[in-house]
Amino acid sequence: MHAYRTHTCGALRASDAGSTVRLSGWVHRKRDHGGLLFLDLRDHYGLTQCVVPAGSPVFEAADNLRPESVITVTGQVVAREGGTVNPRLPTGEVELRVTALEVQSAAEVLPIQVAGDQEFPEELRLRYRFLDLRREKQHRNLMLRAGVIASIRRRMIEQGFTEFQTPLLTASSPEGARDFLVPSRLHPGKFYALPQAPQMFKQLAMVAGFDRYFQIAPCFRDEAARADRSPGEFYQLDFEMSFVTQEDVFAAIEPVMHGVFEEFGGGRTVTPAPFPRIAYDTAMLEYGSDKPDLRNPLKITDVTQHFANSGFGLFSKIAASGGIVRAIPAPGAADKPRGFFDKLNEWARAEGAGGLGYIQFAADGAKGPIAKNLEADRVEAIRAACGLQPGDAVFFAAGAKEDAQKFAGAVRTRLGNELGLIEENAFRFCWIVDFPMYEASEEKPGGIDFSHNPFSMPQGGLEALNSMNPLDIKAFQYDIVCNGIELSSGAIRNHRPDIMIRAFEIAGYSADEVEARFGGMLNAFRYGAPPHGGSAPGIDRMVMLLADEPNIREITLFPLNQQAEDLMMGAPAPVEPSRWKELFLKPDLPPAKVPPKAPAAPGEGAVGPQGATAAKNT
Amino acid sequence: MHAYRTHTCGALRASDAGSTVRLSGWVHRKRDHGGLLFLDLRDHYGLTQCVVPAGSPVFEAADNLRPESVITVTGQVVAREGGTVNPRLPTGEVELRVTALEVQSAAEVLPIQVAGDQEFPEELRLRYRFLDLRREKQHRNLMLRAGVIASIRRRMIEQGFTEFQTPLLTASSPEGARDFLVPSRLHPGKFYALPQAPQMFKQLAMVAGFDRYFQIAPCFRDEAARADRSPGEFYQLDFEMSFVTQEDVFAAIEPVMHGVFEEFGGGRTVTPAPFPRIAYDTAMLEYGSDKPDLRNPLKITDVTQHFANSGFGLFSKIAASGGIVRAIPAPGAADKPRGFFDKLNEWARAEGAGGLGYIQFAADGAKGPIAKNLEADRVEAIRAACGLQPGDAVFFAAGAKEDAQKFAGAVRTRLGNELGLIEENAFRFCWIVDFPMYEASEEKPGGIDFSHNPFSMPQGGLEALNSMNPLDIKAFQYDIVCNGIELSSGAIRNHRPDIMIRAFEIAGYSADEVEARFGGMLNAFRYGAPPHGGSAPGIDRMVMLLADEPNIREITLFPLNQQAEDLMMGAPAPVEPSRWKELFLKPDLPPAKVPPKAPAAPGEGAVGPQGATAAKNT
Repeated sequence: MHAYRTHTCGALRASDAGSTVRLSGWVHRKRDHGGLLFLDLRDHYGLTQCVVPAGSPVFEAADNLRPESVITVTGQVVAREGGTVNPRLPTGEVELRVTALEVQSAAEVLPIQVAGDQEFPEELRLRYRFLDLRREKQHRNLMLRAGVIASIRRRMIEQGFTEFQTPLLTASSPEGARDFLVPSRLHPGKFYALPQAPQMFKQLAMVAGFDRYFQIAPCFRDEAARADRSPGEFYQLDFEMSFVTQEDVFAAIEPVMHGVFEEFGGGRTVTPAPFPRIAYDTAMLEYGSDKPDLRNPLKITDVTQHFANSGFGLFSKIAASGGIVRAIPAPGAADKPRGFFDKLNEWARAEGAGGLGYIQFAADGAKGPIAKNLEADRVEAIRAACGLQPGDAVFFAAGAKEDAQKFAGAVRTRLGNELGLIEENAFRFCWIVDFPMYEASEEKPGGIDFSHNPFSMPQGGLEALNSMNPLDIKAFQYDIVCNGIELSSGAIRNHRPDIMIRAFEIAGYSADEVEARFGGMLNAFRYGAPPHGGSAPGIDRMVMLLADEPNIREITLFPLNQQAEDLMMGAPAPVEPSRWKELFLKPDLPPAKVPPKAPAAPGEGAVGPQGATAAKNT
Repeated sequence: MHAYRTHTCGALRASDAGSTVRLSGWVHRKRDHGGLLFLDLRDHYGLTQCVVPAGSPVFEAADNLRPESVITVTGQVVAREGGTVNPRLPTGEVELRVTALEVQSAAEVLPIQVAGDQEFPEELRLRYRFLDLRREKQHRNLMLRAGVIASIRRRMIEQGFTEFQTPLLTASSPEGARDFLVPSRLHPGKFYALPQAPQMFKQLAMVAGFDRYFQIAPCFRDEAARADRSPGEFYQLDFEMSFVTQEDVFAAIEPVMHGVFEEFGGGRTVTPAPFPRIAYDTAMLEYGSDKPDLRNPLKITDVTQHFANSGFGLFSKIAASGGIVRAIPAPGAADKPRGFFDKLNEWARAEGAGGLGYIQFAADGAKGPIAKNLEADRVEAIRAACGLQPGDAVFFAAGAKEDAQKFAGAVRTRLGNELGLIEENAFRFCWIVDFPMYEASEEKPGGIDFSHNPFSMPQGGLEALNSMNPLDIKAFQYDIVCNGIELSSGAIRNHRPDIMIRAFEIAGYSADEVEARFGGMLNAFRYGAPPHGGSAPGIDRMVMLLADEPNIREITLFPLNQQAEDLMMGAPAPVEPSRWKELFLKPDLPPAKVPPKAPAAPGEGAVGPQGATAAKNT
């Protein structure tokens, strides 16, 4: 018989009754029922009820066990009797009558409990993450994450992609977010940087002739923690393809996203491929956002024309001064009580809007403050434009275009929630396309800035740059959005030095400046670069959506806390003076204004770095 | 028709003749044959011959193309006539008659050639790695690497392992190799470290209740480059299992190793599972190495007893003073010319040995200097002990045990090569097991040191520690070796604080010292730790074996050079004073003794960091 187990704790069934087996695992729960001792033994695979009869030679040993001790038990599988069968447990038809018990590892009193649903402070959970991870939800979340990543890999390979590892010690990107620096020992005063993304490397892989690259890529940004972003490292499904149009990129990745969300969505509906493509301008109009949550059925309509020169003075004035009025429908809301409208008005004012005007289309006609002042044919025109029926209401967001369309989006979200319209148990994907290449500069009056990524290919190429109003030029740039969350941006890249120099010229950069700043990449493109494009959906965000967890730490094996500390391993930590010396560094600590934090108690709870020798070579 | 291609450059066959197709790729070669222009068009998938007839409207454009320009061609597939079929090319039965040609990216004059087998200096190759990677061998090596890693992943998952990502920003390991440090911005004066290996994390994953962990794990050591080791990062197949014996670990990983080497070995023989297990002591005796190359059929025999008190004074004296004599057979070498033996003798002296004695078992009796002095019955006893036949010879390594057994191993390797005995086209795996837990201390006379990993479980556990001579205790530690190359060490870990404290006590450490240095890990083991073990075969080494490449840079996508520089991206590099300031660092450069190297020419060849904005979020 195997030293530790013949079966896992999730394996035994009624058909095993009568056989002698051995199990190993953690003592999940222990109950004394009139001399009978029940032990729920838990491992990675499941839970099996073990019974130690009174008078058993191992009774005392079993009785003395603290929860979370690791034991090996041997005994006979016995079918449970009718009433004691536990249908919620896969092993619930049987129990193990223990005849031998060996303690592999006796647990001391636990700082946090594993069994049960008790909440513990995050600091305690992270310091004892190896205990926290034994809890059912945490274990499930991490297994989900692993499953999602393995599935993505399998699906990308099925789509003809090849995974490559790009360097993790690379050059600093002064223009991106803040990167982590790694001092060089061999080159005093110089630094490597950890990659914020393998963007340059994946483009160079295309220039090098590989056709479909992907990587579950670790990325690093030294930025403040947010719920959906780790303070240190995160993972993205980085991919890039050669000789493709934007539609080819979509067609390659949609089956992967759809497949993964179907596989792990637990029955939730997933947008079938092809996902809707929504032009940026349309998204801003109809959803008031470039990250629309399509679970919300409401669509916004522009009704500026219906208020222009109308009897409703406020909106008439806004229209006259170049502003806009957007209408957000509220199906079935016409006969909501006055409080409903008042509450929304208060919310709008708290959001910084002047208020939230509305029209109620009651069975006996349009009502409300606006309807009183607006000409009846205009009220009717708005009703028709918004496709409303008697019984519906409509709200209005008015003002300068940028503000009003964004606020209309907020109203849409709010109404969707208030009216219970948000589709449940669904993942609704879409692509936002046709982003503007340029925007009017806020800093240089009359000037032009890139609106998003200057390295995307402008639609229409060089000809468009040379002939069109820059503000009308769109880029081959796209976002993939799920349930209102942007999973990533992507683009068909500008692989042509001539087009890139012209594109920068429009934004006010001379050719010399472009060569000085981006010459390396331009030069690589001068030895034969294929048209290429890609994207990089965030793995953590995908897992958070699937796990329904708003906090990235819940889906990370050993996360840093919000202060970017690893409480379990004790990182970051001071290092020996000799290490400073060999890196040609000395501290430049401010005298008092930014006092260094007290060092984490070494060895106390923190697992590392003391166990360091264990790191070698195994 | 697709904007870039209807087929890849590896797709067209005779059955496509007559169809109109479009291809995109790089101009691999261009030949002008009496007005006909032949273009070999290359992409990731293959090569297709394209023909531009004289007088074609695109002839001039095609004629002006430099090699490595990227073009799109449209035309008709034509079957090649008998004599012009190229059987070595999958597309060799057809060619494309070009009717339209679009230049996607015109190449300038190349710093290194892609077509052909010309060698270029490593510095140039690495600076223009995106060109170097277009070459057939480099492309093939990297695709092999990707295939190997994908196959390992698939096979590990089939074996029930789950891949997890362990942290890359973690705590420094002062006792291992030198790690890369990452200064913390939020915690002035403190550092993260990049992991040398996820050893602690994988053990904690087992303590956390996950059962079979693996990871294609990036690891980092700030150590000098070697041919088989990158100066920065490398990858290992890191794995760990709970509730396992040593044999369970072997049984889990053998199908993976065997399968991968079979799949990518190109027909080379691979040791079938189970791989031979060779005790450390046996390996040192029979192969003179704990990394035996089993393609070499020679086995060493101890013949000390046959020389003890013998007529051959030198070896007799060695035996009398506690030394050893080892015999290395040389099948069929009896009638080699005198020069063969002289050359080996010279080699032995160059290796630091006194010389290399031998006996020739000629058809008419034993010959050579030793046979002259050694008693005939002893000569016969040696022949029998070594299993030699007339026509064979035997060589002797004699001296103090450590030196002589190691030198015997060198002789074995040398003879295997000289005699052409090394099995060709084979991958020969074995496990080296039963490593000694302790060894006599070289520093403390009479003292005891750990011989390898102090965190391995001693065979026999606490009882062995308490009852046996420490020098006789073996550890549950093992190496996996292929063709004489150690792919990794591994161990069943010591998960019991009581056994660990006792094990360290034997090596002269007090319980207090152990708690102070390894308290974190010990504490984690005090809340219920499963018996567990694993290993971490080097991915790079596996790929090097399969690609038959002795240099790790040849199987790395974008490698650092031997001075740990990325010549393409320009890393490491100086950073802005503001970055120093926000990391609370200042340089501590030595005045003259270690002058900082001249900065790499920015923008000139080096791709990064100028193209930095491209890194953001796509």
